[in-house]
Amino acid sequence: MKKISLLGATGSIGIQTVDILRNNKDNFQLVALSSGKNIEKTREIIDDLQPELVSVQQEQDAIQLQKEYPHIHFTFGTKGLVEVATHPDSTVLVNAVLGSVGLESTLAAIRMGKTIAIANKETLVTAGHLVMAEARKYNVAILPVDSEHSAIFQSMNGENPKQIERLILTASGGSFRDKTREQLKDVTVKDALNHPNWSMGAKITIDSATMMNKGLEVIEAHVLFNMPFEKIDVLLHKESIIHSLVEYHDTSVIAQLGTPDMRVPIQYALSYPDRLPLVGGNRLNLAQIGQLHFKEVDFDRFRALKLAYDAGRAGGSVLTAMNAANEAAVALFLEEKITFLQIEEIIEQVMNDHQNILMPDLETILHVDSETRKTVANMVK
Amino acid sequence: MKKISLLGATGSIGIQTVDILRNNKDNFQLVALSSGKNIEKTREIIDDLQPELVSVQQEQDAIQLQKEYPHIHFTFGTKGLVEVATHPDSTVLVNAVLGSVGLESTLAAIRMGKTIAIANKETLVTAGHLVMAEARKYNVAILPVDSEHSAIFQSMNGENPKQIERLILTASGGSFRDKTREQLKDVTVKDALNHPNWSMGAKITIDSATMMNKGLEVIEAHVLFNMPFEKIDVLLHKESIIHSLVEYHDTSVIAQLGTPDMRVPIQYALSYPDRLPLVGGNRLNLAQIGQLHFKEVDFDRFRALKLAYDAGRAGGSVLTAMNAANEAAVALFLEEKITFLQIEEIIEQVMNDHQNILMPDLETILHVDSETRKTVANMVK
Repeated sequence: MKKISLLGATGSIGIQTVDILRNNKDNFQLVALSSGKNIEKTREIIDDLQPELVSVQQEQDAIQLQKEYPHIHFTFGTKGLVEVATHPDSTVLVNAVLGSVGLESTLAAIRMGKTIAIANKETLVTAGHLVMAEARKYNVAILPVDSEHSAIFQSMNGENPKQIERLILTASGGSFRDKTREQLKDVTVKDALNHPNWSMGAKITIDSATMMNKGLEVIEAHVLFNMPFEKIDVLLHKESIIHSLVEYHDTSVIAQLGTPDMRVPIQYALSYPDRLPLVGGNRLNLAQIGQLHFKEVDFDRFRALKLAYDAGRAGGSVLTAMNAANEAAVALFLEEKITFLQIEEIIEQVMNDHQNILMPDLETILHVDSETRKTVANMVK
Repeated sequence: MKKISLLGATGSIGIQTVDILRNNKDNFQLVALSSGKNIEKTREIIDDLQPELVSVQQEQDAIQLQKEYPHIHFTFGTKGLVEVATHPDSTVLVNAVLGSVGLESTLAAIRMGKTIAIANKETLVTAGHLVMAEARKYNVAILPVDSEHSAIFQSMNGENPKQIERLILTASGGSFRDKTREQLKDVTVKDALNHPNWSMGAKITIDSATMMNKGLEVIEAHVLFNMPFEKIDVLLHKESIIHSLVEYHDTSVIAQLGTPDMRVPIQYALSYPDRLPLVGGNRLNLAQIGQLHFKEVDFDRFRALKLAYDAGRAGGSVLTAMNAANEAAVALFLEEKITFLQIEEIIEQVMNDHQNILMPDLETILHVDSETRKTVANMVK
């Protein structure tokens, strides 16, 4: 029985994680969770999985829930996230919160020796050097939850990482993959949220349309698999069936495939090194799909991806600036305060103006993060 | 330094094995080899790789070569194959002879504790139960050389075989994949030898066109991976880029891909569990390929594949009868003595007439093999 702490239980990944825990009560026990403002959903999870500790975003929600469930311990806010992440009973932390808020709690869990199943790519992008250094120090495994990184991780099973020639991350191309840059000028929020293959949260769906999502994944792959950027490629593959590939130096390529279902990589991170049957999973039928398509990625068309490679190669605090600028710009786009193409423009401007600090410490990262958000807010005033 | 015995050095797989040994003299040493009647090619290999022992098919060739190379030991015939397979210095036997002739020498090598890299599928098809029982007894690894089985083997790396849901062997469909059965009536030997993807020997190219090759591979997969036939599927994939796939019970599918190059699986069997850089290998470029196609296999169209599944499910000596009938019929087709569709008809008739013996011993297998060849010869008199 693995005991699990879950950050971000009511988000897209969190809900699917809960689904897996619910279907595998003999294998997993949820001991602590955090959620945001969706208290109705939080109650549902509590009723079903009976955690010992729950953290919500706001104090008044914690007080209300404490009255309803006197035998469960409730807490709230940023310190609540750390409490959930470091719950003494859990051996695995699933970090499924959005944005850089998951960083401190992840570092705290690593120091407790917990295995980290990481769906929060911002943590690795902004503070990959800190997280991986702590993971090495405390001999902790960082297991990917993202479908692409899980595919790479699965394709490295039993292999010698030194014999890897190249990681190939597949990209659906997002909602606008068939549009030219000219056509991107007038796209709406509604258009952008209509992802062809994956059902995901709003922020990641926009990131998928700009391909900043793939850019963050390239950086995450660099961090997780200790691979130089020139050995990480992106391949357009609109069906999202091959989730990513690893090429070895004998020209052999190992890939992981499947129907697009986030529960597969989530469950794999939980069950690793074993696999459990996926309850309600759809088996891949390649004959029915008939064709898989592949295309080279165009860095002029997908400028955000280019910016992410640039930031990745530079390293340092510019990664935090890029990520914060993206988060802030995407929020502004979702509020219809900027156009779709302005997301990239804002990121580029922030990166150009940024005074890079190599190997930033946690304080610097948090400082750059909040300053960048202010800068972006001022840009559109 | 791994020391290698090689059966069938001048055949298609043998030549490519020699190519790998030549390019990796720091890793491998060829200590013993067998060849057939191609003495010129045998001389080339001797000059280049300086083996200690060489067996040829005919006595007079052995005598001639002995004069030319007094410091090397020459032998010939069936006993020569066994000598090569059991050379005391080698730790790995590559069995790349065609047909059932490789069986006795493979069993002898297993009893010497040698790792077997097996490209001779007939050995596993006709005597899989004997080979695997001996391999278990002597704790010997049987490593696949066939591209499909190597793909499956690579896709099982680090995995728990109990969690496999299904093996999926891909099939190009061979030279006649786009022809109807009606159109198959008049095809010539020349048409049949024109395989779209792989450059292979004549017998296997015809087997590929009838899809008996895939049938033999299904049986081989059953034997090598101890998988029931209902968990082994065949998928038409005309590009031969995905070499085969393994589906796990979490719906995750792991696959091995690459440009069609037999040196990849051959070298993998030699270097396993490591991988060596492939000298002169072509890297896979999926963007350039653009599309991969998949189609369900039609057992009415490819009757030989259906016959192979039938024989596999029945087990026993009918496997030898089927294989010998196929070998004899293909030889007759290559001599233009029968038509292409008669190959299947002959196999089917032999299978229908066969009195099946379950768990046949080596003597029975060799007897059924030779009797079946006589029967087929009599059929076309």
